[in-house]
Amino acid sequence: MKNLVEKNKITIFDSTLRDGAQAEGISFTVEDKIKIATALDDLGVDYIEAGNPGSNPKDLAFFEHFAAAAEPLKNAKLIAFGSTRRKGISAAEDDNIKALLQAQTAAVCIFGKTWDFHVTEILRATLDENLEMIADTIRFFKQADKEVIFDAEHFFDGCKSNEKYAMLVLETAKNAGADAIVLCDTNGGCFPNEIFEMTKKAVELVENLEKSQNTGKSQVDEKSQVVEKGEKIVPIGIHTHNDCEMAVANSIMAVQAGATHVQGTFTGFGERCGNANLSAIIPNLQLKLGFVCVGNLAKLTQTARYISEVANIPHNRRAAYTGKSAFAHKGGMHIDAVEKASSSFEHINPELVGNERKYLMSEVAGRSMLIGKIQQISPELTKESPQTIEIIGKLKELEQQGYQFEGAESSFGLYIRKLLGKYKPLFELVHFKTIGEQPQAEESAENSASAIIKITVNDQTEITAAEGSGPVNALDKALRKALEKFYPELANVHLTDYKVRVLDSTNATASKVRVLIESTDGTSNWTTVGVSADIIEASWLALVDSIEYKLIKEIEEKFKAFI
Amino acid sequence: MKNLVEKNKITIFDSTLRDGAQAEGISFTVEDKIKIATALDDLGVDYIEAGNPGSNPKDLAFFEHFAAAAEPLKNAKLIAFGSTRRKGISAAEDDNIKALLQAQTAAVCIFGKTWDFHVTEILRATLDENLEMIADTIRFFKQADKEVIFDAEHFFDGCKSNEKYAMLVLETAKNAGADAIVLCDTNGGCFPNEIFEMTKKAVELVENLEKSQNTGKSQVDEKSQVVEKGEKIVPIGIHTHNDCEMAVANSIMAVQAGATHVQGTFTGFGERCGNANLSAIIPNLQLKLGFVCVGNLAKLTQTARYISEVANIPHNRRAAYTGKSAFAHKGGMHIDAVEKASSSFEHINPELVGNERKYLMSEVAGRSMLIGKIQQISPELTKESPQTIEIIGKLKELEQQGYQFEGAESSFGLYIRKLLGKYKPLFELVHFKTIGEQPQAEESAENSASAIIKITVNDQTEITAAEGSGPVNALDKALRKALEKFYPELANVHLTDYKVRVLDSTNATASKVRVLIESTDGTSNWTTVGVSADIIEASWLALVDSIEYKLIKEIEEKFKAFI
Repeated sequence: MKNLVEKNKITIFDSTLRDGAQAEGISFTVEDKIKIATALDDLGVDYIEAGNPGSNPKDLAFFEHFAAAAEPLKNAKLIAFGSTRRKGISAAEDDNIKALLQAQTAAVCIFGKTWDFHVTEILRATLDENLEMIADTIRFFKQADKEVIFDAEHFFDGCKSNEKYAMLVLETAKNAGADAIVLCDTNGGCFPNEIFEMTKKAVELVENLEKSQNTGKSQVDEKSQVVEKGEKIVPIGIHTHNDCEMAVANSIMAVQAGATHVQGTFTGFGERCGNANLSAIIPNLQLKLGFVCVGNLAKLTQTARYISEVANIPHNRRAAYTGKSAFAHKGGMHIDAVEKASSSFEHINPELVGNERKYLMSEVAGRSMLIGKIQQISPELTKESPQTIEIIGKLKELEQQGYQFEGAESSFGLYIRKLLGKYKPLFELVHFKTIGEQPQAEESAENSASAIIKITVNDQTEITAAEGSGPVNALDKALRKALEKFYPELANVHLTDYKVRVLDSTNATASKVRVLIESTDGTSNWTTVGVSADIIEASWLALVDSIEYKLIKEIEEKFKAFI
Repeated sequence: MKNLVEKNKITIFDSTLRDGAQAEGISFTVEDKIKIATALDDLGVDYIEAGNPGSNPKDLAFFEHFAAAAEPLKNAKLIAFGSTRRKGISAAEDDNIKALLQAQTAAVCIFGKTWDFHVTEILRATLDENLEMIADTIRFFKQADKEVIFDAEHFFDGCKSNEKYAMLVLETAKNAGADAIVLCDTNGGCFPNEIFEMTKKAVELVENLEKSQNTGKSQVDEKSQVVEKGEKIVPIGIHTHNDCEMAVANSIMAVQAGATHVQGTFTGFGERCGNANLSAIIPNLQLKLGFVCVGNLAKLTQTARYISEVANIPHNRRAAYTGKSAFAHKGGMHIDAVEKASSSFEHINPELVGNERKYLMSEVAGRSMLIGKIQQISPELTKESPQTIEIIGKLKELEQQGYQFEGAESSFGLYIRKLLGKYKPLFELVHFKTIGEQPQAEESAENSASAIIKITVNDQTEITAAEGSGPVNALDKALRKALEKFYPELANVHLTDYKVRVLDSTNATASKVRVLIESTDGTSNWTTVGVSADIIEASWLALVDSIEYKLIKEIEEKFKAFI
């Protein structure tokens, strides 16, 4: 552990793999954990807390992977997490502590009770016994040559109940040799002003302890010189939870009170309402307060979205800094202003965190946004043209029906073509029929449905059929099969995403649904939309748009001008 | 407007229907807006900002509904929102201002530029012109006998750029007669300490203005008496955005600095990263700081979830206070401690906000949780019984396949019965077939699909058919029709909700889907689940569970013991 802390450096301690794994709906495999640790290391965090080997044997497999790895992490230190020794036995006898040693990490994080109520009512130990458990455990790991981070569990609730005892816990940890002391708002119930005041007291306590310990030492003693320069030898950290939706602010206030180490999970998930969200704290500290947290801030968005993906949780679209909507503008007046000066409605430049600006289409979006799309198709039209006004009216009507073009701009482009008369269908549907059946015939167990389709292209008729998992899949296959005869370029198109949303769920199985389909031809992606009370019809509309969009694009590219 | 503010009362101003509608993915119908306004009114908020009639004509339909309503809102005042008059014309000539009058609300909210940069660069007006626009507009509405809330847009960024001008804007609004002045962190980039300091300055400014205006007035003047008692005549409000994930804390800090009016959206949605989340701010203020915000705090959770549902956005499971996971405990040690004393890991009692505690499945915690459900069916079983272990194994297997019983406990109860052999199917499916067709025959335009079904009940066979909007709806109708002959009690059962979620969206139209169906018989509700790659099969599984659950319950009630 470096004794001299880099000026303005805030140590970032990520617990996505340990405290994050306590979240409802999260269950990491060892492979998931390796992926996430590697991504966090690339971003440049300082510590990665990866598991509690004592309470979850599966975590040991992960630590063994890294202990044996040919390429260890580049920046980050791995942390194994556990509690202080149990009452009445020595640290060396405690199975959880043995498991921590087995993890073979250079650093460990140990939590200890700091709230008197928890010591007597939950742990059922005396206040003195608890102090001994803390001191013994820290000393044990220091003797085993580990870096020891001490998490003072429930520090803030402890202060409110018995401040003297809570401070005695910090002093005990400091004297036993802890390399960092972290103040935890374990229940997430504290307020920013409380966090600020109590953190300040803790920082002052540790500073005073340093000073008194160094009194009388030789003036050339390295440690005392450092203290004289105002550097802290034992940093104070902060660990908060989001039960009042204030974990990010609480972490920031703690840093403003003198904490230099911040614990959290990368996208904020964790038990109950989650942990402090590091993907918001890091840019807040680095871009707004001038601290240094990580080396690759431009990877922030990518890292956050990747972790959500590995955790199989949709990344919060509204997440500060990293969400898809974080720099999305919808109101017409706002879009106009951002075009004039982006700082008018953006607190930072999105590129700094690897995110991007986005203008949304909708009934509240101004004409100036729509006109861009319209001019791509008919460059001669202006904001005032009757066709522009007609298109805006039609857009509002479709949104009323449940369409939403925000994520489906390809369908919107086709609508504009249709309204402007710049559209000729590339095929005509004569008829389709889908059939679903139960029980299924054994020879087609994978395919519970079939579809028959008849289309015409330039007066040529094609009829064909396909089987699939459900009627939509069967219809998709049959349509492509019929069209490939005429448009062989469709062979390399396939669907990459299919989303269904029930729009008006109170009508039960007759509810309207909106289907969004994302397609790719290997080089680009596009999204189309369909709405209907019948999921097959909604899917059909989105499928047809997807295919027409691709074919029109191809024709345009070939002939430079379509129609 | 009441001049004497109730002691400790914080005015709650909800903008879900206006600023919330700026969020990506949100598009409210008039019916949605009426539902949300009614729910907010029941909870007891003070103001409901429901639209910007000048920029969105659809909003007028909503205001007209309430202006004509036989039963207006009980607690809340409706607000129509708009900007100050345009440059170079009078307020009476401005179309947006006319639209605000058309909304016929007793109160309006007017925003005006407060940041000098926005005045000169975006509005392209002089600083003096902007002050005139603000004063004129407020005076115009006061003359029209409206209550006027003034939103000082970008107040905090304005203070950082030109504090003197930002304060002049507040003074202008106050002198023109504004009934409340709201400080906005429009770009969401400010920090809690900044919000605290600048709010304090604004509160002091308005207090000093009050004092100087009242100097020389008669001692019996009601207003000056109020000022002497330290009551503020013109309250200061706070309006923050979540771009740094600190909007809740910023609102709290503003109240601690003297603000008595808080604006936000109920579940936090809004443009970019969203607005300050009222469902977290209200309990923070009311339970932790002793303020009074709403009358029915126990309806908080229900209101937040209902609004999410109407907005068709899944309610954030980790939302502070109102999320499904907000009081969910997973770690074995935590569950143990909460059982000893709930305050050990809960910052408040969940019942205060209408939420509930939850223990999640885990290798240790699972059994003690499940055993309750199992004993409802087989009271003789214990945690150690082989059947219990088998059920836990089966549950994990089903969850791996994409089943989720958290919201579908009726299906889970049926699974337990099946595994324990305490289940006898109440009908057997011989065969069904669903047919979807396009184009539809004209005489059945509403019904794009049909279904044929053949079932047996006690060796009696019934074959029937039905049409519906899509194959699932047709199948639902056909199944009920066939069963009602044998089980007439099904006549009063109907579906109230139908939800589809794509589980693995990378397989496109062959993705697995999970269908949740909520049913009612008029007195109770139950939810069932089905998972399959075929949406019809998934729906079928959930439908069959729904019907069996109802029939088993009926039989149990009649014979007190089933099998």
